[in-house]
Amino acid sequence: MGKSFTKSLITSEGSIRSSNRVARTPESVIRDILKVINNSDILSFAGGLPDDSLFPIKYFSEGFNLAIQESGAKLFQYSETQGHQKLRTWIAESYYPESDPEEILLTNGSQQALDLLGRYFLDEGDFVLIEKPSYLGAIQTFSSYGPRFIGLDYRNDGPDPTELKERISRNPTLPKFFYCIPDFQNPTGFSYSVPNRKAIAEICRDAGIPILEDIAYRELNYKNEIPISLSMLCPENTFSIGTFSKTLSPGLRVGWIRAPKERMRELIVQKQAMDLHSPLINQEVIYRFLISGDFQNHLINLKQNYAQKAKIATKLFQEIFGDTIRFQPPRGGLFLWIEFLDETDTNLLFKTALAEGVAIVPGDTFFTAESSSKQLRWNFSRATAEEMETGVKRLFKAWQRLHSI
Amino acid sequence: MGKSFTKSLITSEGSIRSSNRVARTPESVIRDILKVINNSDILSFAGGLPDDSLFPIKYFSEGFNLAIQESGAKLFQYSETQGHQKLRTWIAESYYPESDPEEILLTNGSQQALDLLGRYFLDEGDFVLIEKPSYLGAIQTFSSYGPRFIGLDYRNDGPDPTELKERISRNPTLPKFFYCIPDFQNPTGFSYSVPNRKAIAEICRDAGIPILEDIAYRELNYKNEIPISLSMLCPENTFSIGTFSKTLSPGLRVGWIRAPKERMRELIVQKQAMDLHSPLINQEVIYRFLISGDFQNHLINLKQNYAQKAKIATKLFQEIFGDTIRFQPPRGGLFLWIEFLDETDTNLLFKTALAEGVAIVPGDTFFTAESSSKQLRWNFSRATAEEMETGVKRLFKAWQRLHSI
Repeated sequence: MGKSFTKSLITSEGSIRSSNRVARTPESVIRDILKVINNSDILSFAGGLPDDSLFPIKYFSEGFNLAIQESGAKLFQYSETQGHQKLRTWIAESYYPESDPEEILLTNGSQQALDLLGRYFLDEGDFVLIEKPSYLGAIQTFSSYGPRFIGLDYRNDGPDPTELKERISRNPTLPKFFYCIPDFQNPTGFSYSVPNRKAIAEICRDAGIPILEDIAYRELNYKNEIPISLSMLCPENTFSIGTFSKTLSPGLRVGWIRAPKERMRELIVQKQAMDLHSPLINQEVIYRFLISGDFQNHLINLKQNYAQKAKIATKLFQEIFGDTIRFQPPRGGLFLWIEFLDETDTNLLFKTALAEGVAIVPGDTFFTAESSSKQLRWNFSRATAEEMETGVKRLFKAWQRLHSI
Repeated sequence: MGKSFTKSLITSEGSIRSSNRVARTPESVIRDILKVINNSDILSFAGGLPDDSLFPIKYFSEGFNLAIQESGAKLFQYSETQGHQKLRTWIAESYYPESDPEEILLTNGSQQALDLLGRYFLDEGDFVLIEKPSYLGAIQTFSSYGPRFIGLDYRNDGPDPTELKERISRNPTLPKFFYCIPDFQNPTGFSYSVPNRKAIAEICRDAGIPILEDIAYRELNYKNEIPISLSMLCPENTFSIGTFSKTLSPGLRVGWIRAPKERMRELIVQKQAMDLHSPLINQEVIYRFLISGDFQNHLINLKQNYAQKAKIATKLFQEIFGDTIRFQPPRGGLFLWIEFLDETDTNLLFKTALAEGVAIVPGDTFFTAESSSKQLRWNFSRATAEEMETGVKRLFKAWQRLHSI
């Protein structure tokens, strides 16, 4: 951030003066890593990419054809800001009991949903409650609005309700919202226990703090555990953020917000100002697959596949690193969150690992303020079993090298 | 705006406190008109919709199939924020002499390009130079950042360079940018003369004021007039905003920014925060059509069609309204900008017209501050000749009724 700010001031195009926002918006370390290693021999476990061999692309191809045959030109014309009516109905019925399609706004992936809610809620200096660690893309876009973050430790059963209560009461003003990922969080893979869900929903509702609940990984529950969501516990106080990026395809860029109905008009106006609307044909292709009857099987297959990969990754780390590390074997999602029990600094490990030909993300990246440098995030959804074995071995070699210096 | 602000304060969900931005963002009158009249007997000339019967949807359909056959799953995976490399190359080569693809950033339509640049440049209270009248979507998104607008009259050969100079020197601080549409502007259909282009580019460059040049209608030049763009005159000081919405399809949502290269990194970071990236498959389908060899013929056909419709609209207004009105027969673009020479107030006419079954947009809508209520915008690109005749007759009846009250 500092670098970017300096650049704005000393550039030779002194006349082009950018907004304060530019200096406030951190670059995404992960997207930078991904770009650098794109065409190299480095094995990457740094991204959060789903396994593209599992995308139902034949259905997508048929979906485009049938959609164009049946609906023709209107799929390519301007369309409504709120998005595909039937897809909104499907989302409301599938994920939000007793909601209706007027409570759903379709977005360009869940990243746009996060940005739209940041834009909707935040003025500079506002307080925001956030899990520690949290999703990098959310930290990035919220940061651009200049808030002050209040971090809550994400323990393996969720944040401590007592700590939440205390942080709220200690704060000079009411935080604008609590952003949380209660299911198989990115980066930790942790979930909230049911008692914590209930306590946290109640505390936020009573305090008058809107909950921004990100459910990106909720459907990737390997053991079919779908505990009640905060959105179900208090729909009147929760803005739910969803996406088809993890269950179907990130490239189609279809996400959504479910919001209390009386807020929808204002959210739609922001979306208008942001890009008028998202592409209807992409929403149509998703919708066709969802109602084809194959979505449930696709999801079962996806979960089996990721569960298997999680198992392989778990075994490899346990066997190769032994008790130098600690982690919770994933019950869902796409990540291992590995904590070193010795003095390993994962920021240094990141560099030696790259030199050994393997990319990980140091845990520091996912914190808004003080962090421990003891963790790393390992994505297991995309690599093959062989690649994973090679990757973990390379990482171990990098770790050995780091300790022999 | 006032209404929205009050609502934020007195809502029963008093605890949901939105940002100041929400009250600052005007709703799009036009999109509201479009929604209301969607399923009624009202003939609408209110939108800016291209004629969807001219969309090359067969090519799009083939494009999707071939793209998926050839590139497969990676079209549906996360992809680079800056967008489709070859499409960026095509845009750079076709529209920006001596530029390169690294100067192009693909966006979700030109509306996102406008929002991204608003976000990039504007802090609350900054000054912005803008044509009077101007494009509604730009006014909407810029307004959300809380700037102060400085309006410059758009005469039928563009703003007066002397006025521009004077307004700059009179202003307490340097405006952050000058947003302009030099080719077949929305709403007026006017273009800048070549001397005005040169003078305005020079003034802005010398003053150190970046130019945001919107070229949405530049390709819809019925007489093949393509005068030099401001971007060509001073590429180092111009951010060009383009789109395929008018030449190919608005529903695919593919637009772009061409920016000075040293600004690109910061713009990409903002785009990352906004939605990670736009859908690659949509960009691929556009690219395939562009290089198919049929794009030039498509464009010729499109221009002939719109030129013919402009002629019909011109004739109808001249015959039916006679010398009550004044307007410039369009040489490009999608609109007639009609000025009443009597005391007609187009805000009132708008209502009686709706009652007669025809929708227009009152001129007021396109101004950031004081305006004259004497103009209206008439879109001619979508209706048939018969619909246009019925529409102009209904409008005349509404005008007669208004004057008989």
